[in-house]
Amino acid sequence: MRTEKEEARKLSFPSLRPVREELACVEEILSEKIDTQAELISQVASYVLQGKGKRIRPALLLLSARLCGYRNGFRHIRLASIGESLHVAALIHDDIIDNSHLRRGRPSANSRWGNGLSVLVGDYLYSRSLKYLIDEEDLEVMRAFAEAMMRMVEGEVMEHEMAGRVNISYQDYMKMITHKTASLFSACCQVGALISGASPDQAEALTRFGLSLGVAFQIMDDALDFVAEEGKLGKPVGKDLAEGRITLPLIHILEKGSRSDRALLKRHASGVRWDEQQVAEILSLVEKYQAVDWAKGIAGEYAEKAKGSLSMFPASEPKDSLLELADYILVRDR
Amino acid sequence: MRTEKEEARKLSFPSLRPVREELACVEEILSEKIDTQAELISQVASYVLQGKGKRIRPALLLLSARLCGYRNGFRHIRLASIGESLHVAALIHDDIIDNSHLRRGRPSANSRWGNGLSVLVGDYLYSRSLKYLIDEEDLEVMRAFAEAMMRMVEGEVMEHEMAGRVNISYQDYMKMITHKTASLFSACCQVGALISGASPDQAEALTRFGLSLGVAFQIMDDALDFVAEEGKLGKPVGKDLAEGRITLPLIHILEKGSRSDRALLKRHASGVRWDEQQVAEILSLVEKYQAVDWAKGIAGEYAEKAKGSLSMFPASEPKDSLLELADYILVRDR
Repeated sequence: MRTEKEEARKLSFPSLRPVREELACVEEILSEKIDTQAELISQVASYVLQGKGKRIRPALLLLSARLCGYRNGFRHIRLASIGESLHVAALIHDDIIDNSHLRRGRPSANSRWGNGLSVLVGDYLYSRSLKYLIDEEDLEVMRAFAEAMMRMVEGEVMEHEMAGRVNISYQDYMKMITHKTASLFSACCQVGALISGASPDQAEALTRFGLSLGVAFQIMDDALDFVAEEGKLGKPVGKDLAEGRITLPLIHILEKGSRSDRALLKRHASGVRWDEQQVAEILSLVEKYQAVDWAKGIAGEYAEKAKGSLSMFPASEPKDSLLELADYILVRDR
Repeated sequence: MRTEKEEARKLSFPSLRPVREELACVEEILSEKIDTQAELISQVASYVLQGKGKRIRPALLLLSARLCGYRNGFRHIRLASIGESLHVAALIHDDIIDNSHLRRGRPSANSRWGNGLSVLVGDYLYSRSLKYLIDEEDLEVMRAFAEAMMRMVEGEVMEHEMAGRVNISYQDYMKMITHKTASLFSACCQVGALISGASPDQAEALTRFGLSLGVAFQIMDDALDFVAEEGKLGKPVGKDLAEGRITLPLIHILEKGSRSDRALLKRHASGVRWDEQQVAEILSLVEKYQAVDWAKGIAGEYAEKAKGSLSMFPASEPKDSLLELADYILVRDR
């Protein structure tokens, strides 16, 4: 069991061969110098846009487009860049809210330039993405992204509301991550379909694929907080824990633990932040209940659900890549 | 001279008679309960949207529409509400950046709910405005507002860059306030024209009207920082000054003062924040050079320029109201 997992961990990020060239174009767009009257924006925005992200959202958009027969032009590349920009804008604000000092293995924008400027650069990336989005002159596409933006913010606020609260249910958590993370995954897949003349059924299937995949992704992201090595993840281990953030592994203990273990966790969790000893005690509970593996199991179910959503599509290279991406999410270690 | 000014001060906010009912509708829209999955958003957003603002931006949009013959429907009301929401979203983030504790005579959102939640509620208002904007299905209108949003953020960043700097030129300052404030004034006027079947010349004239008016407004807003009574303005007097922010009255001294006065001001301004004694010394320089009156004179020129932009329009009630608004801006004391 252990060796299998160790093997799986070694799996690298999927090759995404069908859209490798397009992803390089996205990278180029993201690294273009931003033409603005305020030089400081250009500097900070370039810094954050060029952080080594996994670019999963653009990959999803490009692969979804290919899956639905997208052939000519650059709309998919432009929209993939917009999808990533919206994500990066959210990350900048997210780091302010969490007071994070590391992002993608480097100092976060707020720790380098302060909260004030980071708020503004996030706003700038939002409004610039919006401008580019309008230039595409496609109302359905605009609606998909605008809806996702609202959902993302709602998810962030739900998370903010939950911080330091101990009575978080499985449903609360799932609703929160669906808004915070899955909505943009889903919108990227949907937009890929929309610009490719996909049938409503196909678009709907890809929308569902993105939603399930996003849920699986966020569950794994939160689970990795308990186990990842600091160097690999690019942010400190146990950060969520240290901030009193209840994620799926702890919810498992709160719902299935013994009376005394539940009481211990609740006692610790009633403070906003947990000290080192409390963290150690919680980690041993997580170990005892194999809570991380349990959470990974739920993520696995969502990844399977995602893959199932694609059943209507015949076999193809882009389909293989999307399925591979769903598998990768379960074994990634960064 | 003094009595004339005292008289002028007593002028109240223009009646805006031609759009009084529409403004009441805007107020109603702004006070509608926000339907969101995250209750906290609804609470904070309602608080900020219902702050007693002057609602100048919606008034400009509504009057511009009326001036261009807008007759039936509610588009102008919906878009006026969007214009104000964008402004309020910018205010929320602005207060975080400036670390302001008062806004419109009440505690600011950040001082009541903290920076994190305030960043998110600003983001939510932006994305919600965007969604409503897309629902209007008018690309030109979307472009006008999206462009203004980018300009506003650029202006805020320019202001951020200038804070604590002493070598601010008249041109730097004008460029900054044109972006920060005038761009949205202008977009509101432009949108009012666009939805009313105005000719390109008319739309262009109103766009210029809004731009000049916005510049006049911001110059006066900054000048009021030196003179207003705390109760009336709803924020502490000398706040800009205390934050080391160089506005037009000080630029006048930096450009026209005696060598020793310039040196004194520069010495004080080289720190980021000024203490009480420094503020007192600076205020006496402002008095000596009648720098506030000088700035008001510049604002007056821009207000005249704004009024001149409307010369192509025949006399009408909405035109009178717009001219009255330009006059009011020069004499307002809050």
